[in-house]
Amino acid sequence: MDLWLKEMQLEDAGIAMTYKVKETLVRKKTQFQDLAIVDTEVFGRMLVLDGIVQTTIKDEFVYHEMISHIPLFTHPNPKKVLVVGGGDGGAIREILRHPSVEKAVLCEIDGDVVEECKKYLPEISCALDDPRCEVFIGDGIKYVKEHKNEFDVIIVDSTDPFSIAEGLFGGNFYKDIYESLTEDGIFIAQTETPFYLPETVKKVFSDAKAIFPVTKMFMAAIPTYPGGYWSFTVGSKKYDPSQVDITKIPEMDTKYYTPEIHKACFVLPKYVQDVISE
Amino acid sequence: MDLWLKEMQLEDAGIAMTYKVKETLVRKKTQFQDLAIVDTEVFGRMLVLDGIVQTTIKDEFVYHEMISHIPLFTHPNPKKVLVVGGGDGGAIREILRHPSVEKAVLCEIDGDVVEECKKYLPEISCALDDPRCEVFIGDGIKYVKEHKNEFDVIIVDSTDPFSIAEGLFGGNFYKDIYESLTEDGIFIAQTETPFYLPETVKKVFSDAKAIFPVTKMFMAAIPTYPGGYWSFTVGSKKYDPSQVDITKIPEMDTKYYTPEIHKACFVLPKYVQDVISE
Amino acid sequence: MDLWLKEMQLEDAGIAMTYKVKETLVRKKTQFQDLAIVDTEVFGRMLVLDGIVQTTIKDEFVYHEMISHIPLFTHPNPKKVLVVGGGDGGAIREILRHPSVEKAVLCEIDGDVVEECKKYLPEISCALDDPRCEVFIGDGIKYVKEHKNEFDVIIVDSTDPFSIAEGLFGGNFYKDIYESLTEDGIFIAQTETPFYLPETVKKVFSDAKAIFPVTKMFMAAIPTYPGGYWSFTVGSKKYDPSQVDITKIPEMDTKYYTPEIHKACFVLPKYVQDVISE
Amino acid sequence: MDLWLKEMQLEDAGIAMTYKVKETLVRKKTQFQDLAIVDTEVFGRMLVLDGIVQTTIKDEFVYHEMISHIPLFTHPNPKKVLVVGGGDGGAIREILRHPSVEKAVLCEIDGDVVEECKKYLPEISCALDDPRCEVFIGDGIKYVKEHKNEFDVIIVDSTDPFSIAEGLFGGNFYKDIYESLTEDGIFIAQTETPFYLPETVKKVFSDAKAIFPVTKMFMAAIPTYPGGYWSFTVGSKKYDPSQVDITKIPEMDTKYYTPEIHKACFVLPKYVQDVISE
Repeated sequence: MDLWLKEMQLEDAGIAMTYKVKETLVRKKTQFQDLAIVDTEVFGRMLVLDGIVQTTIKDEFVYHEMISHIPLFTHPNPKKVLVVGGGDGGAIREILRHPSVEKAVLCEIDGDVVEECKKYLPEISCALDDPRCEVFIGDGIKYVKEHKNEFDVIIVDSTDPFSIAEGLFGGNFYKDIYESLTEDGIFIAQTETPFYLPETVKKVFSDAKAIFPVTKMFMAAIPTYPGGYWSFTVGSKKYDPSQVDITKIPEMDTKYYTPEIHKACFVLPKYVQDVISE
Repeated sequence: MDLWLKEMQLEDAGIAMTYKVKETLVRKKTQFQDLAIVDTEVFGRMLVLDGIVQTTIKDEFVYHEMISHIPLFTHPNPKKVLVVGGGDGGAIREILRHPSVEKAVLCEIDGDVVEECKKYLPEISCALDDPRCEVFIGDGIKYVKEHKNEFDVIIVDSTDPFSIAEGLFGGNFYKDIYESLTEDGIFIAQTETPFYLPETVKKVFSDAKAIFPVTKMFMAAIPTYPGGYWSFTVGSKKYDPSQVDITKIPEMDTKYYTPEIHKACFVLPKYVQDVISE
Repeated sequence: MDLWLKEMQLEDAGIAMTYKVKETLVRKKTQFQDLAIVDTEVFGRMLVLDGIVQTTIKDEFVYHEMISHIPLFTHPNPKKVLVVGGGDGGAIREILRHPSVEKAVLCEIDGDVVEECKKYLPEISCALDDPRCEVFIGDGIKYVKEHKNEFDVIIVDSTDPFSIAEGLFGGNFYKDIYESLTEDGIFIAQTETPFYLPETVKKVFSDAKAIFPVTKMFMAAIPTYPGGYWSFTVGSKKYDPSQVDITKIPEMDTKYYTPEIHKACFVLPKYVQDVISE
Repeated sequence: MDLWLKEMQLEDAGIAMTYKVKETLVRKKTQFQDLAIVDTEVFGRMLVLDGIVQTTIKDEFVYHEMISHIPLFTHPNPKKVLVVGGGDGGAIREILRHPSVEKAVLCEIDGDVVEECKKYLPEISCALDDPRCEVFIGDGIKYVKEHKNEFDVIIVDSTDPFSIAEGLFGGNFYKDIYESLTEDGIFIAQTETPFYLPETVKKVFSDAKAIFPVTKMFMAAIPTYPGGYWSFTVGSKKYDPSQVDITKIPEMDTKYYTPEIHKACFVLPKYVQDVISE
């Protein structure tokens, strides 16, 4: 049977990626969104929320390594880390590879995402049962407001801003994050595609820049994300993520991240620089 | 009318990109391949050969800047440049922005590609009529064999190796290129996607490495190419493209390339390193 | 190049037919609609208006024979025939095969349809230059209002009611048609798919029935129309199209219509009967 | 999530129907074929074998009524009926509505079809548990050979001849069927689309005609079958199915079949006549 998942790469627009589906493992309306985990021929199992591919067995390593190791190898001694969103557990898995981390909190609004990823994507969600991990099902905005001066690193691993995650983009939320961070804390968020959505990227970066002393953008190449090239924004109170002394980064077995990539990823193509420069 | 171009991203496999088409400007069987230029909603006009997207108005800048400026800013004084393939003229356009270049030869096997791109993609093909450009319609393999010790830079801007371009990949051709280069000459080729085709990339890189004293790979993010992240291989007799003194690179108005990108693009993600390391 | 025409079979709904396209012969915005003629692999050239397939070289015979020969072999001596819509000329071609016909008027609102069909679909439009045919470019509703008691047969060969053809469906128009017909005149219209659009079919049939002494529906199997099975409604002042003496129908070289089909096509499946019965 | 079932309407050819899928209820490799039951937006649940839509909740009534009631209302007193194939049970359901029937045997080669249809398509398979029904899982060719002079009606309700059902089309099998029928027995088979596959239809009809004294073809309009218009061939030892006295057909609550349709369906469009005439 020829079954294809069709993902519009731009809302209502003339470009779509299609994936041949081997099996639908779960498909349900949760309290917040349409959730599906399908097994595809080329990318293996993938988590699909409201029709948008979130993560896949075959290429998840890029996203999860980069959103985790960049801040955690920037901060000299990260002990307490918060992930807002990220219910698949991939960021938690990478975070807990850092021995300094004593506690990693996952604050995911949709408990079904956590539950189904534990069941069907164990390669990604495997660390959610680690004793150092605390899974909290609830609103990230509220959680951040209620935890002041607590986290060394906060990772916003959300869906697109055209979704329930809308409130996780923009200045109001970033202010709360700033206050939830310790005095040398670091914030990172996935911030969409500068190729297709320059206005979105521009606004998000500028909002972060208005709040954090150090604000930097880096890029990573993720095959299943629109355009294949994704931006991440780092807001930092003290440490510059693009200026780490990479000779001090300990060895880690990774598939995308390397200490050299840590520096090179902050070198932006001219059109991306133009998007975020005033 | 809802007309979609469907491009399989892997031969016979379960992933396809689809583009909504506004207009088919030309579609013909040439002596060598199916040629089409279509106007799409998201990427504007695009050249499609044997069903594969070659270049588009909206994202061609990445490919053409990177395949040209990396070798031409590596070589201290490139005077004579050869492009094998590249009938759209995009590489020639970028090459001729370098004032040292006295002559740029385009050797394209399919005259129809040149003719139709001149007609329908003038933004890309505009420099083909420059007096410093010589367009030669013929077999690149033969041309290279017949021009020894002549070019400072040779750019292989070909279609995929699963096409008429098959002979433009591999050791035999690279030997001829070596001899066609001057004593400090530089060769560059597009060398496919390490994510989807690791074996192809591995072999091509290894073939180049067996011939050139300096062989390096870099990556560039091209939205319309499978995986969105493309490899290029540089083979050089003398200069290391990854070690140029970027403080000496003159300013140029570009959209992707920058001197900093020139260095950063050679920093490879771990899985790409793994593909090309023995 | 893999180019596909995608036709939604129901507005905004989950079923689409896709046709592989060999060539786009014409595509333009006319004053009234998007007009395209494309050449497809399976159905040859087809006329597509606002994204909906109207007629194709391979299966047009069903529609044009049935919409023409049913009324013209029902009326004992049709001399003057009007086609409202039908700019492709297929109905005119069939009408003019009846020797009694002295004049066939085509009243098509969109002159571009006539012009392009003459150019690219000569097999269908061939009779538009016949001296007995008069082509009038203008509004069918107005034309009918202005020609009272004139036509023996009026054929409404329109696009769907969700288009510029909306006014060609319903009681107001049928009243005008009634008055434009001679005292024993016959009206016929294509009236959509009872399988997918029972409410539409029910209303149109009931509107016709309120005006004509004899109102009958017949079906024909048309591969490129949604559901493959299409309804036609005949409103007649005097003759019952389902009760013709078929022994008197002269021989004609046809591909779908036969005298026996003339009777059998009025025998409706139970669910179609149910749609049009009170 | 935008999940589409794509069904090629002709093998390797340029026409495909696509259905939006709500849910995949079952998908498995059986011993014989790929089996899936999916729930679609427009046609509800459908059985899909080797990628080809077999039957759907919304339009199954056409096929099952016509393949059953035509032979059973032709035979004056059908007591024992065999269905070869038809594992969904739809034909059995219609057969058992005839009070004369004492026993209806279903001989289906693929037990999984029966099992899954019982589970997921109860509206169709509901009569498989009727005490008058005997389900035999095994090869229809062998079964027919081993049951001589036994059945009043044999219904071949198979997949396409380009599948495991190949042996259920053609003279050899029809000879065995002839012998398995009682002296006034009737055989019927679905025999594909004369529009797309005229050669296939021609051969099958001619094979039947070589064996049965009375051989007739009728058509039915089935939206989900290629072309929307399907042929059935009846081979009969004695009774002509097109000449039944329809005044004697008792009333039955149906959605497609009526006594008048029983006669009208045998009136073939000219191009279909041409396909089966020598």
